[in-house]
Amino acid sequence: MSQRARTCFFAAIFAVAALANQAIAYDGTVKKDVFTMPSYTTVNGKTIKNVRVGYETYGTLNAAKDNVILVCHFFTGNSHAAGKYKPEDAAPGYWDAIIGSGKAIDTDKYFVISSDNLVNVNTRDPNVTTTGPATINSDTGKPYGMSFPVVGIRDFVNVQKALLDSLGIKKLHAVAGASNGGIQSVEWSAAYPDVVERVVAVIAPGLEINAYGIEMLNMWSTPIVTDPKWNNGDYYGREEPMEGVAQSVKLVILSASGFGGLDKRYGRKWAADDKDPGAALSNVYAIEDGTYKAAAARAKTIDANHFLYTARANQLFSVAAEAKKIKAKFLFVPASSDQFFPPSMVRRWAEVLRAQGNSVDVFEIEGDGGHYDGLFQVSKASTAIRDFLAR
Amino acid sequence: MSQRARTCFFAAIFAVAALANQAIAYDGTVKKDVFTMPSYTTVNGKTIKNVRVGYETYGTLNAAKDNVILVCHFFTGNSHAAGKYKPEDAAPGYWDAIIGSGKAIDTDKYFVISSDNLVNVNTRDPNVTTTGPATINSDTGKPYGMSFPVVGIRDFVNVQKALLDSLGIKKLHAVAGASNGGIQSVEWSAAYPDVVERVVAVIAPGLEINAYGIEMLNMWSTPIVTDPKWNNGDYYGREEPMEGVAQSVKLVILSASGFGGLDKRYGRKWAADDKDPGAALSNVYAIEDGTYKAAAARAKTIDANHFLYTARANQLFSVAAEAKKIKAKFLFVPASSDQFFPPSMVRRWAEVLRAQGNSVDVFEIEGDGGHYDGLFQVSKASTAIRDFLAR
Repeated sequence: MSQRARTCFFAAIFAVAALANQAIAYDGTVKKDVFTMPSYTTVNGKTIKNVRVGYETYGTLNAAKDNVILVCHFFTGNSHAAGKYKPEDAAPGYWDAIIGSGKAIDTDKYFVISSDNLVNVNTRDPNVTTTGPATINSDTGKPYGMSFPVVGIRDFVNVQKALLDSLGIKKLHAVAGASNGGIQSVEWSAAYPDVVERVVAVIAPGLEINAYGIEMLNMWSTPIVTDPKWNNGDYYGREEPMEGVAQSVKLVILSASGFGGLDKRYGRKWAADDKDPGAALSNVYAIEDGTYKAAAARAKTIDANHFLYTARANQLFSVAAEAKKIKAKFLFVPASSDQFFPPSMVRRWAEVLRAQGNSVDVFEIEGDGGHYDGLFQVSKASTAIRDFLAR
Repeated sequence: MSQRARTCFFAAIFAVAALANQAIAYDGTVKKDVFTMPSYTTVNGKTIKNVRVGYETYGTLNAAKDNVILVCHFFTGNSHAAGKYKPEDAAPGYWDAIIGSGKAIDTDKYFVISSDNLVNVNTRDPNVTTTGPATINSDTGKPYGMSFPVVGIRDFVNVQKALLDSLGIKKLHAVAGASNGGIQSVEWSAAYPDVVERVVAVIAPGLEINAYGIEMLNMWSTPIVTDPKWNNGDYYGREEPMEGVAQSVKLVILSASGFGGLDKRYGRKWAADDKDPGAALSNVYAIEDGTYKAAAARAKTIDANHFLYTARANQLFSVAAEAKKIKAKFLFVPASSDQFFPPSMVRRWAEVLRAQGNSVDVFEIEGDGGHYDGLFQVSKASTAIRDFLAR
């Protein structure tokens, strides 16, 4: 081969390599896939046929299939954790600040996979695929409604495990998530201790939901079950309990918001300048109006029964009795102004894990946004997460 | 007079004095009085005829009428702050731990007066006298319902002021109260700066309710207004929205409880040993069942509209713009685990008052009972309150 031919040959090789690299590297554009199981049997022994959940991936699975980070979603969230479906999308996935090329969860190194949960609340979001009470039961041709079996966080995890198995993935470099996603991450470490090497649990409670958390979830669910249109969960094909769902979401927003953030945003302003709340009971403050409207808009994609089932799954969360099985290293990321799962709660569980020999780091996000800081201020934990994943 | 006659004379004098003393000293037995105003005009210019509120007193008013401590009640409370109506009463008034002979608010020194508020929620409690939406409007012969004017904390205070005027009381050694009672105490200091010498504000927010507090009160009210039986407040003489009231009270209980206290009481126990919440959505945890039952029992004496009006009065609370008028000395008593009005919020307002020259002490009740620690653990602040009142 002449010098010139050799030059061309290597140039061509490099070009192909670059092209291949470009084809497989994550550039922020994502698409949704769907994973299907012909049948899944719950922890409580109930069988659900034809389970389908959506998922997204960012980055490239390496040959050893050992560069995988599973990301689990929060209560009202879904698998859209990063990137955009189309460049013109209004916003990227919820954790885009820390998932991507060169970011804390670096898609140049890691293959990130994020799935919709069983009973995901957003049944009317076209980008969500889930299975739950709103799903047609193939045995009856009608939605399951309340005949859908109760599922727990362990069931969410078991379906994710089946998804990973289908991709030939046997090890997780890490499982990560915020809130209910953090809860799933911790559940993973107890359910599959030999699979999970690291847990990044952001704004999560620790090893269980306590009594207060159980009651908070009851509080969130109550507006749905007291809405006459809920009709014991039998509302498919008729008017749905959308007012109940809106009121439930309003409670979620309040629980997840921080004192300081709400004060800055709304203060004591009235909803309308000419409607003094001191003059009539129907005149309200800006925060009452704003929070309700935000909740009602958010409620549009949410199925009432899926909300109740997701709440129950969270109430059921406890791996405290299985702590001894857990082998993973932990990074807990509480938010300083989180009133739902305050840093003090997380630190208590961190001590339990340390006392039994687990490596546990705690990095606290400072802010006044409450629980939401685990979503909107997560970039403050970038270095802590990056360093933890490299250890 | 013979020696014997003199002895008899003095013995008789002492006997009479002892008898008189016994008659006027507070021995823990109380009776309810009622104060009536032929007409009261609200801050917003609405006139309410024949305003009636109940009140209790403990101790003896001195000749100078300058040993008076006014005690204001909390949201779901009433004027029964201390003592018992009958020895066989199950429990004394809510602050009996600090009001009485030799106690922090020492009835051997002070004349304590405690009144029911306007729109007190407990219209069906035979020991409560109040005026609000459930009261018969003498112009129509029917309950006011939503035609009752919106009242604010300033209106509560103005009616208390009229009560004190009727007793010839021109100075308050102190105004004290827990939660909404603490809010009224602070309002007093701005409304009547030359009357109020000291404020003891227990588990109160400071100089105003913030956006978060406004929304919490909205959250408490929502189960009532979304109960179809509420019927825009027009339910007198028909079935009342008792389920809504119960759900509202459930939210009050959760807001006012502390993480730790609820954990100790309920933990993750099920409501029934044979009803696994993992097996059916209708099976619940002990905290869900216990809190609901407590709320439903408490709701029996509560009028739905009075609850809404009391919530609005609290939303309206702000004396931040009047801070400069305030002359009183302050003792703030936040509770360490109070999530509603956390110590950090109180300390911020304490700094505002100190910066303008007011004397402000802050004593924090340590505990895990949340907001409720200002009621049930108030004896922890006994020395702080006693010393503050003596200064």
